[in-house]
Amino acid sequence: MIRYVADHLITMQSDPAVIERGVVDVADGRVVHAGSETEAPPFEGEVRRLSGLLLPGFVNTHTHTPMVLLRGAGEGLPVDRWLVEVMWPREGKLTPDDVRWGMTLGAGELLTGGTTTSHEMYFFSEAVIEAAIDAGLRLVVTPPILTGDDLTRFGTWEEQLQRMADIADEHRDHATVTVGIGPHSGYALPEEPLRAAAELATDRGLHIHIHLAEGRTEGDAIAERHGVTMPRYLDSLGIFDAPRVVAAHCVWVTEDDIELMARRTVGVAHCPMSNGKHASGIAPVTDLRAASVPVGIATDGPSSHDRLDMFEEMRLALRLARLRAGDAGAMTPADVLTMATREAADVLGRPDLGRIAPGSRADMILVDTTPLGPVVETDDLVTHLVYSGTPDLVRTVWVEGRIVVDEGRPLRVDMDAARTEVVQRARRLALP
Amino acid sequence: MIRYVADHLITMQSDPAVIERGVVDVADGRVVHAGSETEAPPFEGEVRRLSGLLLPGFVNTHTHTPMVLLRGAGEGLPVDRWLVEVMWPREGKLTPDDVRWGMTLGAGELLTGGTTTSHEMYFFSEAVIEAAIDAGLRLVVTPPILTGDDLTRFGTWEEQLQRMADIADEHRDHATVTVGIGPHSGYALPEEPLRAAAELATDRGLHIHIHLAEGRTEGDAIAERHGVTMPRYLDSLGIFDAPRVVAAHCVWVTEDDIELMARRTVGVAHCPMSNGKHASGIAPVTDLRAASVPVGIATDGPSSHDRLDMFEEMRLALRLARLRAGDAGAMTPADVLTMATREAADVLGRPDLGRIAPGSRADMILVDTTPLGPVVETDDLVTHLVYSGTPDLVRTVWVEGRIVVDEGRPLRVDMDAARTEVVQRARRLALP
Repeated sequence: MIRYVADHLITMQSDPAVIERGVVDVADGRVVHAGSETEAPPFEGEVRRLSGLLLPGFVNTHTHTPMVLLRGAGEGLPVDRWLVEVMWPREGKLTPDDVRWGMTLGAGELLTGGTTTSHEMYFFSEAVIEAAIDAGLRLVVTPPILTGDDLTRFGTWEEQLQRMADIADEHRDHATVTVGIGPHSGYALPEEPLRAAAELATDRGLHIHIHLAEGRTEGDAIAERHGVTMPRYLDSLGIFDAPRVVAAHCVWVTEDDIELMARRTVGVAHCPMSNGKHASGIAPVTDLRAASVPVGIATDGPSSHDRLDMFEEMRLALRLARLRAGDAGAMTPADVLTMATREAADVLGRPDLGRIAPGSRADMILVDTTPLGPVVETDDLVTHLVYSGTPDLVRTVWVEGRIVVDEGRPLRVDMDAARTEVVQRARRLALP
Repeated sequence: MIRYVADHLITMQSDPAVIERGVVDVADGRVVHAGSETEAPPFEGEVRRLSGLLLPGFVNTHTHTPMVLLRGAGEGLPVDRWLVEVMWPREGKLTPDDVRWGMTLGAGELLTGGTTTSHEMYFFSEAVIEAAIDAGLRLVVTPPILTGDDLTRFGTWEEQLQRMADIADEHRDHATVTVGIGPHSGYALPEEPLRAAAELATDRGLHIHIHLAEGRTEGDAIAERHGVTMPRYLDSLGIFDAPRVVAAHCVWVTEDDIELMARRTVGVAHCPMSNGKHASGIAPVTDLRAASVPVGIATDGPSSHDRLDMFEEMRLALRLARLRAGDAGAMTPADVLTMATREAADVLGRPDLGRIAPGSRADMILVDTTPLGPVVETDDLVTHLVYSGTPDLVRTVWVEGRIVVDEGRPLRVDMDAARTEVVQRARRLALP
């Protein structure tokens, strides 16, 4: 067991509060105890002093990290055209090695920016998993179910579903990898694979990861054909019967949709940077949370929020909620910090993540507070962390109790090598 | 004369384009020549190779930098209450030394983030000027005209106006300091000082810096009393007769207002981070620019955009314009880069800033492009700079041809000392 004593600690066991001289005891990748030094239990063993603010690592609830390979492509297009005209033709040329290198570079960026868990949906998930394990990033991954003329390389949806089931079997009880199922969306898939994905999820107790109500017109065809909104349509196919559903975006959900989602097991991955870049709209986050639908902050893929930076994502989530409401009190720094940690973990159905509490995974980050402030009162650190925090202030990162970033550098990723590979591969993918 | 040869150069002489192996010749603080190496004139003298992307420094068109002292205060309030309840009571206790230290720390932050010119409005402008000169930051400064029960320390508006005139006289023809006049706003000042400020500006050929149409209800009292919008009201008092007007915010301007502003000499300082934090709204930037009103990007004071980061400001300007229009093509990376450099300089009426062109001031920044990309084609650097640029990538900064930031560190500001001073002073200001 190791005892860490940090200048400041935010445990996220409840609402964000700052403990001066906080203690965290860690053994076997888990937190044993966390609290103030004055109330810490007796301890014999190694004590490490940490200079800065210790808090749970960020839980990024929706991304496609290997898309670092496609960063910058398709600039200025709405989501539908961007997918069909730019992304899918390029993704159709992907190799497993491309994905592995893209995930490697992106995992390095995520970790150094303070993200310890990434909820991924991407092709060649075996390569995604391999790269994440190598980098030391915790992964909740859902192999995608997605077919199309450009994507024949990835097989039929039946083959995709089978491969997904195999991957899930293979990683059952893995310490840092959890596998779910990723039917892409209600607009990109026909009914049959959606039903099959829902059944498999329910049978096997796996969670579902799906895009939902992202663009303004996304649900138009469904509304015409079936006379219902996209969430109602997915529910009718059994998708919301899964033990847990992570719905990414949810910009264009109605009051009735929100009420439905609240009654089922649906959590929302909120992607403000992506929704802004693609002009998708401003999600009704305040309404969702008021209805007890948990909302986690997410970067989406690095072609949509290029930097995978959860700090900037928190700042934009706060601002968009305030602009939508026309009310500067509509969302607080504490709210967005919660949505980037504990509530994000709840979206994934993972009470062992997103907080530093007895029994939780020891996924933590240490932030240099020197440039933050002026700190007049200790709890100001929450405000300053949200408004002024940046990836380069993240000094140390632990995943499952192991240090994977030290002095701001990823210990297990050769960033220069990964960048060189990604540039070469990006050029090949961009060829007409 | 020194010749700089950079891996990549953006001159901003026209729309953003990237020159591979770009040359900039500098003498006496001015650019003599800028272009590609292959077309450079013969040169005998010192040649310095620069690894990275060289471009004009950012021109921040509206801020109150010494408010680093109040960073974090008044969180969650709309602008009117935030000013009256939190800012003015604290600002009423300011000393010139407070302002000097606040400006010193903030100038260090601005410079290291790539801002070479800051358009300031703050109390004790002599201290602002002194600190900026010491730090090496170019300043366009407008001593504020603002009175109130909490602000008696700063004298009557007549005294403020006289002091402003003295400061302007003192700095006529200064290489890095330009003085204008800063009547705070149409809502915080009565007619008489507004008229007097307008007259003085017109008589002396000085520019005016004013807050305009920031909050939704800001113009209500004027509309009730005079039956006109705030811009029409200011125009009726002679404000728009000044040789140049920099109007900050302009969130709630009508089509008719925009047409008026286009006919006069009004440029707009657009503050998306601030407008989001205070829930002020989304400014009609696309409409303003379509009507030929120049728009510059601005951070506003560090109590509104805490980090004074022009990169994040560009990203948000792009996203808010797209969200307002519901159109991912409504604003491009090239647009926001222009609004942070050349067009920002145009807002200030300063064609010698915001571009690297013969005769322009040698205000430049060198950005490390290593983490940007993958760069598939050279011009992708514009996209990546906007979507992935961060202050910590700014390696070298020149103002008036002199290096003021080297290896990412300000050469003329002791940041640790400034932080220590600011924390102590912030605690005093916060006392009830």
